[in-house]
Amino acid sequence: MKFIQDPIHGHLRLEDWQIAIIDTPEFQRLRRISQIGFANLVYPGANHTRFEHSLGTMHIARTLVEKMEADNDEKREIVASALLHDIGHAPFSHCSEVILSRYLKIAHEDVERILRRGRIKEVLKELGFKISRIIRHIKGQSECNVVSGDIDADRMDYLVRDSHYTGVAYGVFDISRLLNKISFEGKKMIIEAGGLKAAESLLISRYMMYPTVYFHHVCRIARKMFEKAVEFCIEEGSLKPADLLRMDDYDIVAFLRSHGGYPSEIMERIDSRNLFKRAIYVGIDKINITEVQRINSKRAEVEIAEMAGADEKDVIVDIPPIEEAKEFKAIVRIDNELKSLEEVSSLVRALKLAERDVWRMGVYTKKELVEEVRKAALKFFNIERTPKQRRLDELF
Amino acid sequence: MKFIQDPIHGHLRLEDWQIAIIDTPEFQRLRRISQIGFANLVYPGANHTRFEHSLGTMHIARTLVEKMEADNDEKREIVASALLHDIGHAPFSHCSEVILSRYLKIAHEDVERILRRGRIKEVLKELGFKISRIIRHIKGQSECNVVSGDIDADRMDYLVRDSHYTGVAYGVFDISRLLNKISFEGKKMIIEAGGLKAAESLLISRYMMYPTVYFHHVCRIARKMFEKAVEFCIEEGSLKPADLLRMDDYDIVAFLRSHGGYPSEIMERIDSRNLFKRAIYVGIDKINITEVQRINSKRAEVEIAEMAGADEKDVIVDIPPIEEAKEFKAIVRIDNELKSLEEVSSLVRALKLAERDVWRMGVYTKKELVEEVRKAALKFFNIERTPKQRRLDELF
Amino acid sequence: MKFIQDPIHGHLRLEDWQIAIIDTPEFQRLRRISQIGFANLVYPGANHTRFEHSLGTMHIARTLVEKMEADNDEKREIVASALLHDIGHAPFSHCSEVILSRYLKIAHEDVERILRRGRIKEVLKELGFKISRIIRHIKGQSECNVVSGDIDADRMDYLVRDSHYTGVAYGVFDISRLLNKISFEGKKMIIEAGGLKAAESLLISRYMMYPTVYFHHVCRIARKMFEKAVEFCIEEGSLKPADLLRMDDYDIVAFLRSHGGYPSEIMERIDSRNLFKRAIYVGIDKINITEVQRINSKRAEVEIAEMAGADEKDVIVDIPPIEEAKEFKAIVRIDNELKSLEEVSSLVRALKLAERDVWRMGVYTKKELVEEVRKAALKFFNIERTPKQRRLDELF
Amino acid sequence: MKFIQDPIHGHLRLEDWQIAIIDTPEFQRLRRISQIGFANLVYPGANHTRFEHSLGTMHIARTLVEKMEADNDEKREIVASALLHDIGHAPFSHCSEVILSRYLKIAHEDVERILRRGRIKEVLKELGFKISRIIRHIKGQSECNVVSGDIDADRMDYLVRDSHYTGVAYGVFDISRLLNKISFEGKKMIIEAGGLKAAESLLISRYMMYPTVYFHHVCRIARKMFEKAVEFCIEEGSLKPADLLRMDDYDIVAFLRSHGGYPSEIMERIDSRNLFKRAIYVGIDKINITEVQRINSKRAEVEIAEMAGADEKDVIVDIPPIEEAKEFKAIVRIDNELKSLEEVSSLVRALKLAERDVWRMGVYTKKELVEEVRKAALKFFNIERTPKQRRLDELF
Repeated sequence: MKFIQDPIHGHLRLEDWQIAIIDTPEFQRLRRISQIGFANLVYPGANHTRFEHSLGTMHIARTLVEKMEADNDEKREIVASALLHDIGHAPFSHCSEVILSRYLKIAHEDVERILRRGRIKEVLKELGFKISRIIRHIKGQSECNVVSGDIDADRMDYLVRDSHYTGVAYGVFDISRLLNKISFEGKKMIIEAGGLKAAESLLISRYMMYPTVYFHHVCRIARKMFEKAVEFCIEEGSLKPADLLRMDDYDIVAFLRSHGGYPSEIMERIDSRNLFKRAIYVGIDKINITEVQRINSKRAEVEIAEMAGADEKDVIVDIPPIEEAKEFKAIVRIDNELKSLEEVSSLVRALKLAERDVWRMGVYTKKELVEEVRKAALKFFNIERTPKQRRLDELF
Repeated sequence: MKFIQDPIHGHLRLEDWQIAIIDTPEFQRLRRISQIGFANLVYPGANHTRFEHSLGTMHIARTLVEKMEADNDEKREIVASALLHDIGHAPFSHCSEVILSRYLKIAHEDVERILRRGRIKEVLKELGFKISRIIRHIKGQSECNVVSGDIDADRMDYLVRDSHYTGVAYGVFDISRLLNKISFEGKKMIIEAGGLKAAESLLISRYMMYPTVYFHHVCRIARKMFEKAVEFCIEEGSLKPADLLRMDDYDIVAFLRSHGGYPSEIMERIDSRNLFKRAIYVGIDKINITEVQRINSKRAEVEIAEMAGADEKDVIVDIPPIEEAKEFKAIVRIDNELKSLEEVSSLVRALKLAERDVWRMGVYTKKELVEEVRKAALKFFNIERTPKQRRLDELF
Repeated sequence: MKFIQDPIHGHLRLEDWQIAIIDTPEFQRLRRISQIGFANLVYPGANHTRFEHSLGTMHIARTLVEKMEADNDEKREIVASALLHDIGHAPFSHCSEVILSRYLKIAHEDVERILRRGRIKEVLKELGFKISRIIRHIKGQSECNVVSGDIDADRMDYLVRDSHYTGVAYGVFDISRLLNKISFEGKKMIIEAGGLKAAESLLISRYMMYPTVYFHHVCRIARKMFEKAVEFCIEEGSLKPADLLRMDDYDIVAFLRSHGGYPSEIMERIDSRNLFKRAIYVGIDKINITEVQRINSKRAEVEIAEMAGADEKDVIVDIPPIEEAKEFKAIVRIDNELKSLEEVSSLVRALKLAERDVWRMGVYTKKELVEEVRKAALKFFNIERTPKQRRLDELF
Repeated sequence: MKFIQDPIHGHLRLEDWQIAIIDTPEFQRLRRISQIGFANLVYPGANHTRFEHSLGTMHIARTLVEKMEADNDEKREIVASALLHDIGHAPFSHCSEVILSRYLKIAHEDVERILRRGRIKEVLKELGFKISRIIRHIKGQSECNVVSGDIDADRMDYLVRDSHYTGVAYGVFDISRLLNKISFEGKKMIIEAGGLKAAESLLISRYMMYPTVYFHHVCRIARKMFEKAVEFCIEEGSLKPADLLRMDDYDIVAFLRSHGGYPSEIMERIDSRNLFKRAIYVGIDKINITEVQRINSKRAEVEIAEMAGADEKDVIVDIPPIEEAKEFKAIVRIDNELKSLEEVSSLVRALKLAERDVWRMGVYTKKELVEEVRKAALKFFNIERTPKQRRLDELF
């Protein structure tokens, strides 16, 4: 048994079988995958990695399953799934997610390719794990919602961790109270009444972190630039999409730097924080969201570039998906009744709509092209820009 | 110039005129008025006082007015008002607010009686302050919203401070970011776009602290017991209501202890944490809120006691006011437009409704009377208690 | 099983037998005994109590004994002793320690009078505890050093807690690492090599807190004024020393306020922070420590007052004991060898001497008497005050 | 004016001239130089960089110079020097310091080569800075000790920052109190009496961090392995030493990975945390320190390898320098006298000796060679290993 020091959870205990998994090269690679991509361009402290987040998620899952009625093998399986839940991330985490999706039709939860090969496969077998069951937990297909759910070990860790490293206090919620107030009905976590506020707090934290960290415009711009450079390499055949699953941040950065041409140029821009600028950046109130969601952003880039007399490589159209107002599935027990979190919390109901408030669509380009591209983009998206200037006395 | 160490804001600088105010007996009394009454019966760390909260509020107000265009005298006046904003609190702060209101028709913001007498009056005069103007700031009647508003220095301090001492993380919001993103239009604070999330965060914090701290049932019970004991003394003539404005926690505790009879009995119960228990405790979904708000709780106590064959002194009916869904008045500047916070944030709009979720009405009594009083109270309030027990598979 | 929220250790679990002890009036009294006396006159956040410190100490002791080889009864006994270790404190904790010692010949660890009476005695018996064994643990007479030793549960809690509430960071040491690195040889705690730095850190913290908090001159002055007022009451017969063991802070404050004369005058000075000032305040380099330690401070007060033409009641001579350079008894295991902490750490050896650096002797009096009393005190103690003023270039 | 969020100091204000410096490629490179090399192999949170440390140091220096009597140009010069003080670091910071020293005869403070070239040179000139003066500040050759001294802005930042990211609490000292208590005599910082404990605390923190972080054996091993791989490349001519000054962590990792042979093998070991193990690891009490310091570690590696029948490339001899007990130069003002910190603090005097307690010499090798190499190393260094096993009762 060993201990490892974690800035979030303090001393983390590691059992032998956990160390065996951690010591595989597949897991060690997570040390070199940054947790929130290029967010350190905005928050210089945000250099944390998928490695520590994976340890933290394992720690929370372990605390939770202790309360579950299940045999030790099943508990161990869930804990192992928590530890491995991010092993499928490619360099810069979510920053290469679109690439995985477009070219390999997978998300980072699709860990088959990783777990069924190499040293990690051997170790999991030696330790007696059924890989198919671990995969189901990670993909959210098991009946247990510890690893994947609206309020799961993953989210509990990353919100606090990302908040710690960015220095943004929004993500701080009462993790110890929440853990204390979770119980199990079969394999499902239930939040006891005393944990209701902490559960609300978690979902609010997530809502808060989106615009200030995950969707901060500088992070989006760097990410889309990186995406475009990687895509360029894939399209011209110098990079195979599947290679990304074996690469770490160092590999892809070195690859882009030494590639020459457009990819190197983009990488150098990211390195020296000489990023594209916003030509337009608008919320849902300025556009017709249904129409905009149907637009192919590639095509939009080509057309806007043409209208602006610019090269298509210098224009990025960023239309983030707007998540359907899907139901939050967490369950709360109040006065001995089970209810959905949404049912008992008008705040949580509000969050579904509130996500639309923070959605932004952007068109980005080189500093010197901003004016021309803005005009073209406004035209392309049919946006009027005449904010009426209100006076203070109208409001009070 | 001196410095004082504050666990929330670090080193607080004190200028000479501030020290002169702080050194008056009227202000020193705040050292012995606990900030959140009997909350330490639930959160043993919550022993902080109005003294340190007043210093903290002053510190925040000072940071804010630096950005305001005003002459130094006006700025000093606002900072002094922040420092003095809680000088009107009676023992155990909000726990004696109902008494002040019932017998003196004042709230703790009505500081005339305090500021226009004694040493504090002299000092304010010597320092050149106009007491009437300070009073207007404290009562929220000035055109400046630094001391009193939806997002004011008072609230910014107490949410973080109460959170620190209770150990509840809900109240933690990004105070430094918010301070940074506030600017002024005339004497009114405006939140710049970059501070929107922090402003939302503040209002959410407040919403969160209500049920977990300020309205925690144990705090309510202790407070209502204390209220009832003090009322008893006033009604029988042994205590003059106006004396409360000069007393501190030590005075009233000593008074009740040495009084004998019912007041001493109640004080001993609070001292030994042998509190009344909840006979009923119900949310807004169980009752007709309009009718309930019209009920006189004194009369309800008498009737329920009679029905239960108990003494009226042993029954407490606690019907907190339900706040009207009044508008949040904070103003945000977005894309060069001024808008109300509510207009731009669906989350804030939701908070107005969400406050109803956490409202609870309670009837409290001695442990041995709980069953009888419960029956009587259910009947009195016409409450059915047949929660339908839902099954997990109905919810997922 | 219940949980209580502690700002230091988070959620503290309370078992039924612990709740039974906590619910006694004797233990509840600790809620109203401030942990570090009048330190809130300097650090306004320092309003914490012996109650929460006792819970924290219990929590640490419980974590430690889990590693000890002993039957459950013995472990429970140690945990109960940790919970009860401060039950013998009189109002304002250490501020009345001198009184207990002078008039009752006891220290706060002498808990016989408390544990062998009243409700607490009954509860301990009902729970099957042997009171004599608990007393031995608290007095440091058992073979186990968890409750009382150089590195014990008490100290681990109070250093971090006092630091938290004063806002002074000095007391922060790595408590979780230290707990992790303690093992047992029989009933004795041993520090494993990996915990050496954390153990050093604890002792350094203690050394740091002394001058900045525990022996801050304002705290000393308030404490000595309080002592003198209480002594006055005892000497004239209005207060029985043994009563202090049943009183809380509220009782003694109310008593002194209502007493009239000198005690009320002193209490009012403390209330309004209108304290005595330092006439002299000197370190060990200015005096002959051996001689000074032999002086009777009462007699010194009389003589200095006479020389200064002042009333003896207005002069306080404060000669804190200088602790013998006693050995730190903590044991460390390094390279499979057991060694004393002192042996392996030159830093810890240095601490023994360093304590002399921070020792200060003071003579305090009313502001208007400072000059006269200073002259008298300098003469009485035979102190020369001719600091040679050094220039910067002599030092670099 | 812009703000940047820092997890240590909160909102950092950036003025235009600071942004101009930060935006140069030379400064942006610091984003990709890890602050404490391979410490993340032990403390997974320790991924912070020289970039954020440089901003933090600038922030502290700015706070300090505000108190200095000097014209604005001089103050600006000092703040710029603080911002630039680490621009001379090569990949993995101190991990390549030995290489710089051996092959280029420079340390990271020798920033001439960097500041007198490229974009940074231009920007400094445009902003009106005298580069020679900045260099003197960074090298500690100016009369001002803000940037370089025993208690300087650099150290104040890195101790708190490294502590934050490692999760080790040892480095936490009261930075705000210390900053408050520093004043100036000419260009020299002086610590006022009230800051004495904070100053001691800083030096103790540093002493604590050495064995637990900076000189943790795993960090030493990874660092020496990296050093040996880089040296191999330099010796065979594939890497020019001066290139290191332009490379970042990504460059050197990519270089070693793609190099093939021994360097790639070592890099892969570091990547997969498959490090060399300790064959011997001994303190100063086991060896003759004077003799050992005279040994050439290269030659020792060759001889020990030969004795063990191993390849010299698989043996690392790590003999850290033992620092001379040089005087701490910080000055304290006590009772209106200037004194050296050492003079007034026996604790600080003790630290000079205490550094010897934590010194360790190590011989490291592949796991499978440990036994053979240990025997050879014990022989080579003439070390006896017969710890006498003491019993507990000898110690109490």
